[in-house]
Amino acid sequence: MNAEIIAVGSELLTPFRTDTNSLYLTEQINQLGVEVIFKSIVGDDFKRLVAAAQHGLFRSEVVMFSGGLGPTEDDLTREAVAEALGVPLRRDEEVLAGIERRFAARGWKMSPNNAKQADVLEGATVLPNPNGTAPGQWLSGKFDRRERIVILLPGPPHELKALFEAECRERLRAKLPVAYLATRVLKIAMLGESLVDARVAPIYKQFGNVQTTILAGAGEIQLHFKTRAGTMDAAQVRVDEVADAVEEELDDAVYSRDGESLEQIVGYWLQMRNATLAVAESCTGGLLGERITSVGGSSRYFAGGAIVYANSIKTELAGVPADMIERHGAVSREVAAALAEGIRYRCEATLGIGITGVAGPGGGTPEKPVGLVFHALASASGTEVIERNFSGDRKRIRWFASTLALDMVRKKLM
Amino acid sequence: MNAEIIAVGSELLTPFRTDTNSLYLTEQINQLGVEVIFKSIVGDDFKRLVAAAQHGLFRSEVVMFSGGLGPTEDDLTREAVAEALGVPLRRDEEVLAGIERRFAARGWKMSPNNAKQADVLEGATVLPNPNGTAPGQWLSGKFDRRERIVILLPGPPHELKALFEAECRERLRAKLPVAYLATRVLKIAMLGESLVDARVAPIYKQFGNVQTTILAGAGEIQLHFKTRAGTMDAAQVRVDEVADAVEEELDDAVYSRDGESLEQIVGYWLQMRNATLAVAESCTGGLLGERITSVGGSSRYFAGGAIVYANSIKTELAGVPADMIERHGAVSREVAAALAEGIRYRCEATLGIGITGVAGPGGGTPEKPVGLVFHALASASGTEVIERNFSGDRKRIRWFASTLALDMVRKKLM
Repeated sequence: MNAEIIAVGSELLTPFRTDTNSLYLTEQINQLGVEVIFKSIVGDDFKRLVAAAQHGLFRSEVVMFSGGLGPTEDDLTREAVAEALGVPLRRDEEVLAGIERRFAARGWKMSPNNAKQADVLEGATVLPNPNGTAPGQWLSGKFDRRERIVILLPGPPHELKALFEAECRERLRAKLPVAYLATRVLKIAMLGESLVDARVAPIYKQFGNVQTTILAGAGEIQLHFKTRAGTMDAAQVRVDEVADAVEEELDDAVYSRDGESLEQIVGYWLQMRNATLAVAESCTGGLLGERITSVGGSSRYFAGGAIVYANSIKTELAGVPADMIERHGAVSREVAAALAEGIRYRCEATLGIGITGVAGPGGGTPEKPVGLVFHALASASGTEVIERNFSGDRKRIRWFASTLALDMVRKKLM
Repeated sequence: MNAEIIAVGSELLTPFRTDTNSLYLTEQINQLGVEVIFKSIVGDDFKRLVAAAQHGLFRSEVVMFSGGLGPTEDDLTREAVAEALGVPLRRDEEVLAGIERRFAARGWKMSPNNAKQADVLEGATVLPNPNGTAPGQWLSGKFDRRERIVILLPGPPHELKALFEAECRERLRAKLPVAYLATRVLKIAMLGESLVDARVAPIYKQFGNVQTTILAGAGEIQLHFKTRAGTMDAAQVRVDEVADAVEEELDDAVYSRDGESLEQIVGYWLQMRNATLAVAESCTGGLLGERITSVGGSSRYFAGGAIVYANSIKTELAGVPADMIERHGAVSREVAAALAEGIRYRCEATLGIGITGVAGPGGGTPEKPVGLVFHALASASGTEVIERNFSGDRKRIRWFASTLALDMVRKKLM
């Protein structure tokens, strides 16, 4: 079965907004074994909407609309779909009463324009929307002699997601042949895409019935494996087989085998080892701390640390001797190590990280160019320093530096 | 004149990739006065591509394709557009020689499949691509008795942008009536969208010939003004008139009048006042430091600070008395003030910020619920504390807290 998604709203045709609902919907319906073959984005224009709906109904078995269900004159999805299908709209009194109750509960009177949100395509099932006034609609049947499913969903992402999960997923599944999807995701930090692919392609290519996708970005490679089978067990066995073989090849470069983020994995290892972490960041300016603390409950293993931007602060908060900075420069192997050791001591943590480098765009020299970063990890057993020359802009250099530091912690603890 | 954008590539129909080229292209052609009326995303499928091209040529005066110009079997944009237009492809020997030279320069031999990148629509202008092997193409003329412009652009964003700027912008401008576009952007922090709109709508609605757009997101409102006129001066005068009137109404809530970010504006003010800043962050965990240091050259005004996650670190690195934390709790007005004052003193900075709060999802209590944040700003003239209850998830709460803190610095210095 194939599907397409039509996102409705003139704001999605400006430079400022992009349609993100379709990524969620694609993920959901791919899991059901339905392929997305087309996406389109239409403004709040009746004729263009009707044409887009007609093209969609011609092309695809499932046509999903997001947006354009609100109360304003610009909200035209219901009317356009009715026109494209040649089906009338009927005002649903029960839906209308629900909208009125929603307003009354807040002490407001419903303004008359809201009534159009109770207009339902003849024959459609109303899909209740607990998070907004406009309900969704589901209509399946033969249109122009083709078997089609038409789904209208509200535009706000939290409304759309809740409604899809509660009302659409199982309805769609019931229309499909029974097939269970099993997936695995392996994540790898700080290795290049071509290097990873060269090592693992000979392996995953042996497993023709498992679909493998490589995604690369920002210091991380993701390997997605998926397959379908008549039972969940059969699908899982098949996907595990290839994932395990690939993982064995990549060994400890794989940091996550079930989709967890690097920040989460570092948290797991710290808790498993009953260890705590402190950081002293120069060029990353707080990014490493921000990433670690983006995980809820990180106070169980993250002590804190220092943003040692000025040289005097490296001395004041992380105890780096001023004459060491003088002698080796702030961006040096020695200062990175002293930051890691100093912050570990000051915060009484099991592990200390020190990062110092040149994030650019200014501040580079022939000896210490933009992109040069020293990463140090101090523990009871000593201090390790990794030097790297990252390419790219300030944002990329800082991201890579913080990723490498996180990966150092992981490797130390595993 | 109106336009549409067709993004080509099966990867854009997965949950992992979204079409971002169209945001850039929309911005560019809006500036020329051309409206985007439709966007579509098509996989690497010949029949569907031909149909999408035909629909586009029917609907829109300018049809821009991105992607599908590479050397593989899946790259079908050239062939599909040729089919839709009813125009043959011809291999261009000059383009072919250029591709061969490109390979030779790297010491490689061109594999035969690359030759198809030299296939050009009959009558089209070849648009050189300095950043890749596949050139763009420009074809204008009457198709099916309609005046149309068809533009083929490569998919990789840096290739597409360079090619559009060098080859397409002026060609498009030459097809359009002379009109100059003037724009202004005002940015406002920490005010609600409906509040801002209620105050400024009566003003901007008086200026019918200036288009005003309100964009809201993550603690920030942007007001975009734009207008076109026969001369740049006339356009600028008109757009300045409404922007200035709106700015007067909003007064110091407007932090930026030329598109600068809040982080940049805070940097400007600190430099203008010859002041330095230090931060002590608890619940934001480094986010504030990260945002401040995301600006290149921030070492001129940012000293650094501490990520005071554990209570002992609040004492150790920011000098907050342990009995104060005991008495008032870590999330309190008193501790926020002590953090700001302590870090200002330790870092010898002009201004100190302290942030402490409950970012969630755990850790909330009836007295101190998730979302409660205290923000303190210490200076020579004393310490100011702002208490806020933010709604939303951990990420949103941390973002709002750091935004409010940045805005406190701005208001203190302006």
